[in-house]
Amino acid sequence: MSTKQLTLERLPTVVIENLDPFLDGGRYPIKRVVGQELKISADVFKEGHDQLSANLKWRKVGQPDWHQAPMRPLENDRWEGVCHFIENALHEFTIEAWEDHFKSWQVEYAKKFGAGNTELRTELDEGSILVEKTANRATLKQDKEQLLTFSKQLKSADAHLGAQLAKNPELSGLMAAWPDLDLRTEFHPYVRVVVDRAEALFAAWYEFFPRSAEGKPNAGSKFRDCLGRIDDAKAMGFDVIYFPPIHPIGFTKRKGKNNSVTSEPGDPGVPYAIGSQFGGHKAVEPDLGTLDDFDWLVNQVRSRGMEIALDFAINCSPDHPYVKEHPEWFFHRPDGTIKYAENPPKKYEDVYPLNFHTPDWVNLWEEMKEVILFWVQHGVRIFRVDNPHTKPNAFWEWMISEVQRDHPDIIFLAEAFTRPKMMKALAKGGFTQSYTYFTWRNTKWELTEYLTELTQTEMKYYFRGNFFTNTPDILPFLLQAGGRPAFLIRTVLAATLTTVYGIYSGFELCENVPVPGREEYLNSEKYQFKERDWNAPGNIKDYITKLNLIRRHNRALREYENLRFHTVENEQILFYSKATEALENIILVLVNLDCFNTQSGFAYVPIETFNIDGSEPYQVEDLITGDKYTWRGRRNFVMLDPHTRPAHVFRVRRLVGMDGSQIIFA
Amino acid sequence: MSTKQLTLERLPTVVIENLDPFLDGGRYPIKRVVGQELKISADVFKEGHDQLSANLKWRKVGQPDWHQAPMRPLENDRWEGVCHFIENALHEFTIEAWEDHFKSWQVEYAKKFGAGNTELRTELDEGSILVEKTANRATLKQDKEQLLTFSKQLKSADAHLGAQLAKNPELSGLMAAWPDLDLRTEFHPYVRVVVDRAEALFAAWYEFFPRSAEGKPNAGSKFRDCLGRIDDAKAMGFDVIYFPPIHPIGFTKRKGKNNSVTSEPGDPGVPYAIGSQFGGHKAVEPDLGTLDDFDWLVNQVRSRGMEIALDFAINCSPDHPYVKEHPEWFFHRPDGTIKYAENPPKKYEDVYPLNFHTPDWVNLWEEMKEVILFWVQHGVRIFRVDNPHTKPNAFWEWMISEVQRDHPDIIFLAEAFTRPKMMKALAKGGFTQSYTYFTWRNTKWELTEYLTELTQTEMKYYFRGNFFTNTPDILPFLLQAGGRPAFLIRTVLAATLTTVYGIYSGFELCENVPVPGREEYLNSEKYQFKERDWNAPGNIKDYITKLNLIRRHNRALREYENLRFHTVENEQILFYSKATEALENIILVLVNLDCFNTQSGFAYVPIETFNIDGSEPYQVEDLITGDKYTWRGRRNFVMLDPHTRPAHVFRVRRLVGMDGSQIIFA
Repeated sequence: MSTKQLTLERLPTVVIENLDPFLDGGRYPIKRVVGQELKISADVFKEGHDQLSANLKWRKVGQPDWHQAPMRPLENDRWEGVCHFIENALHEFTIEAWEDHFKSWQVEYAKKFGAGNTELRTELDEGSILVEKTANRATLKQDKEQLLTFSKQLKSADAHLGAQLAKNPELSGLMAAWPDLDLRTEFHPYVRVVVDRAEALFAAWYEFFPRSAEGKPNAGSKFRDCLGRIDDAKAMGFDVIYFPPIHPIGFTKRKGKNNSVTSEPGDPGVPYAIGSQFGGHKAVEPDLGTLDDFDWLVNQVRSRGMEIALDFAINCSPDHPYVKEHPEWFFHRPDGTIKYAENPPKKYEDVYPLNFHTPDWVNLWEEMKEVILFWVQHGVRIFRVDNPHTKPNAFWEWMISEVQRDHPDIIFLAEAFTRPKMMKALAKGGFTQSYTYFTWRNTKWELTEYLTELTQTEMKYYFRGNFFTNTPDILPFLLQAGGRPAFLIRTVLAATLTTVYGIYSGFELCENVPVPGREEYLNSEKYQFKERDWNAPGNIKDYITKLNLIRRHNRALREYENLRFHTVENEQILFYSKATEALENIILVLVNLDCFNTQSGFAYVPIETFNIDGSEPYQVEDLITGDKYTWRGRRNFVMLDPHTRPAHVFRVRRLVGMDGSQIIFA
Repeated sequence: MSTKQLTLERLPTVVIENLDPFLDGGRYPIKRVVGQELKISADVFKEGHDQLSANLKWRKVGQPDWHQAPMRPLENDRWEGVCHFIENALHEFTIEAWEDHFKSWQVEYAKKFGAGNTELRTELDEGSILVEKTANRATLKQDKEQLLTFSKQLKSADAHLGAQLAKNPELSGLMAAWPDLDLRTEFHPYVRVVVDRAEALFAAWYEFFPRSAEGKPNAGSKFRDCLGRIDDAKAMGFDVIYFPPIHPIGFTKRKGKNNSVTSEPGDPGVPYAIGSQFGGHKAVEPDLGTLDDFDWLVNQVRSRGMEIALDFAINCSPDHPYVKEHPEWFFHRPDGTIKYAENPPKKYEDVYPLNFHTPDWVNLWEEMKEVILFWVQHGVRIFRVDNPHTKPNAFWEWMISEVQRDHPDIIFLAEAFTRPKMMKALAKGGFTQSYTYFTWRNTKWELTEYLTELTQTEMKYYFRGNFFTNTPDILPFLLQAGGRPAFLIRTVLAATLTTVYGIYSGFELCENVPVPGREEYLNSEKYQFKERDWNAPGNIKDYITKLNLIRRHNRALREYENLRFHTVENEQILFYSKATEALENIILVLVNLDCFNTQSGFAYVPIETFNIDGSEPYQVEDLITGDKYTWRGRRNFVMLDPHTRPAHVFRVRRLVGMDGSQIIFA
């Protein structure tokens, strides 16, 4: 007889499976931010005809006690519940279900009594015993006494009084409050939820090279010169200032203007070739100032209600201190020399890649973590990670969870422009936010497909797209060709399709001179000092400012998963909405995707989704221009001129009454 | 520094995820039969630009060594491999992937050389070292020597010879044979595969009550009287003889004819009310004979190349020995009496349900297992389980795996007609086969939807539908109304839509007299002796015989997942095909679903799937009638008379040549 496993513990009494969300069988955590709710559903059932009850339970990992909320049955054995997270910390949830003897008794009693059976002494005794047992379980004196009273009533009741008691809501409530969980089944594994701070989901980013802060043609700015640029960004409504690497730049094989393999004296070098005699990843480039200057700047930024994001680029110049201190961390040729980066036939002789599988990998990985923690100590709470897809996924998963265990407020943005599954794996493995393909999604079909995948599939649980309109490496063809209207259009899309977005400085000035035939900037500030008038004519700073204000004032635009696309009778106009669940904030966005021509057409407003009756007039107010229109029904006309009005961002206002002469909306 | 977890073991170097098949995150095993292959795919990728290799590995659980087969990359980081199972046993598989340094070297070398670079001394030295290391790993002397030779050649080669060597297939093969698996990643958890014997997937079942074997009006037959019925079933082509319970039938509250609550003297009782003074689940009803008689019958059936399936019905009559020996295994009223089965307001006073959560549950569960093992000792290898959905899923999962650990040839069929998720959970939990909703799927839409779900979704990996045309409990309305054509039609559907099917005896005689308004047999033999002429006029035994022969001779009909539905321009005609992968056996089935009228229409043969050119004539031979037609192209006409020819079961024959006067097909 092999009863060993049976005597160890009870096997599950309830089947709980097909959880949603449940990423790769619980392998990866789900992401939420503080204040966001999470709807969870699962198949819950057991054999026979017994009644079930189920709870959703969640807690901060490491805490003994659970928050609980009852789940409710939908149809076809599907149950649903909602949990809320109020703390920036790693959480976990599970489902607990059990045969509810009292509910079974209630149903059985009602059936028998309903069929005309009045000989129910046995059933009443059974009910009385169930209630008495529950009374014995109750630790609240008042509940215990009430239950004992009910038990006695059932004991002496006739069938008719019994039927009343079986339906008594007070008794039902007391019985539900003290359930018999002896045979409960708990779902395993517990599902982890990374609960980030709110800024992980909603923020506007502004990227600039600190050395370009003042736009001087032949010299770089220092940290202490950056406040002008920062105040300008704040005025435009940005929350995050993102700096490319601020560390000492290597001299050996330093690149010159426009990525030339030789540099001239005075060329400032590429900030991504990190490390010189002035230090490595824990130092600052002397041309930018000192670490004290950086600390001063962090405080200045913080005092403005903003924060700094730093670049975490694991590149070493041949002058990086690691090269001498830890030569075993690099790749070596048979002759013992260190290998530079290559993507044959291209060579990157100014950069040595690190070997993450070096025999000394434990110390290398630890050192990378220490770099992050060093800047955390200096007040940085956001890291934009350069090319994470060229380092092991396991490294990121380990490093991010290590850092966030003590610092759950640290945000990591993955700058991976690579194959789709790698992008997803990096996000699942821990990155708070991810760069996306947005930059290359221009047509209505492309945008609809991609945004639907991001916001309406399983990706919404782990992949938060941070939409950049441009980067120092990417000047999209559309911006090159489309002129100022293209910049307006891409701003509206980035700012309203998703919740977190960014621009790389110069975008607001509509800079768009490329290296011919390439999606790269000519005379890029990656390689040289760059002269700029930050208020040059034709800039779109007002437009950006308005959009950031609109985002801030409309809760619907601060939610990620509420994006819905709608029909418009013109392939050049994209139409989407974002609405809060309570419908107190409904935003309609209509964008002309044609940078050259005015486009018009009929748009189909999903009024039934907004609980608007077909005959009810409603007002749409363009939050950019202030124009108001009274619309009725689904089908309404729009016309968009890419130069003067490339998009409507409408707030829908409902009819509240009439003041005699006019209809009033609110 | 928290390096503890890092120093324990290497973290994975390759991402392996999104396995298919992978049931509930590996919670449940996949089902195959001996000789069946299993195609497995997964996302496999790692950081950077390194080349990967991946193996699929599988073995019998408990064996140290793996079978291996290389996986091949498809697109978008998806890899695929195939494993084969040759033993009736529990198996497991996993995927192993690693950075393939030599493949990476080959690709890099080819790129550099292809770009015109001939200064490749370092690269050649690197290649030479890789090959030398592999030689050191090789344990086969000949391989080791060849590798060392290649290593030396690379060491002294110039760039051009190096390019030749980098492409040398012999060297590639040797390097692939001795891979460097130091940094390999293995997928966890291992995925279990229950490999059943072939009869789990392909068989025809014939159910009869042994007491009705001779069709006597006022007395029952015994085991020793059953050979006539069995030989008849064999002649019709059935493989499995399935008996309702053969155990002693209770006397207390014994049911009479047509489920009357009182019985007359001489009424034989319902075989599902198990247990009397003559014993319980390990005994046989004395009216059927002795255990020796049963053993004799098992041998007789086996000698005919058939086998017996027994019913496992966990019902106890009030006279069952358990009631006295283990009263604690039952449910009790407050007054201490044992509760009979109820489904309010219905009462089943002849049956006591067992309490699977009794405090003595370990002994109850063990005893249930012992019942199965008792009959296994008596040569029974198939159990049809009555109402498994009223016992805990955990019980079945435990019991079936316990039995199959020592007896992997035991087949369990779940007789659950209940909610879809419970039916799926029972199959996932271990049942080899499952009853289905087939009995109630009659229209083209219903059959297409249901069969597509069974054979084309994840269900194909764990749920094997055993299609019964009827059961002692179910006389479908269609058979009641549709007469003989309905019986023909439902036979064709059951026999060709799936691989394992069954009929309950009397079906071949087109018995269809119901309890009015219900899907139940009038004067059911569940409650009484039943007179029958087993060769009554109008029977469809010849038709059944032909279909079973066709099934046996056509491999395409013995496969489960190859079912495809096709268009026909008539909603009353169902058209589907089954073809082997190599296309050496292609079956087309066209069924008139209308029991009353001749239906005709154009059917669209998916000739491109069968590699038939649009201009090529092909022959379809009706395997039921022997009629042959020459068809061409997709669209071909069919006409089906429900009385004389309710269906075509065509075998497609390809053109092989012309003998001058006529086209020859094979």
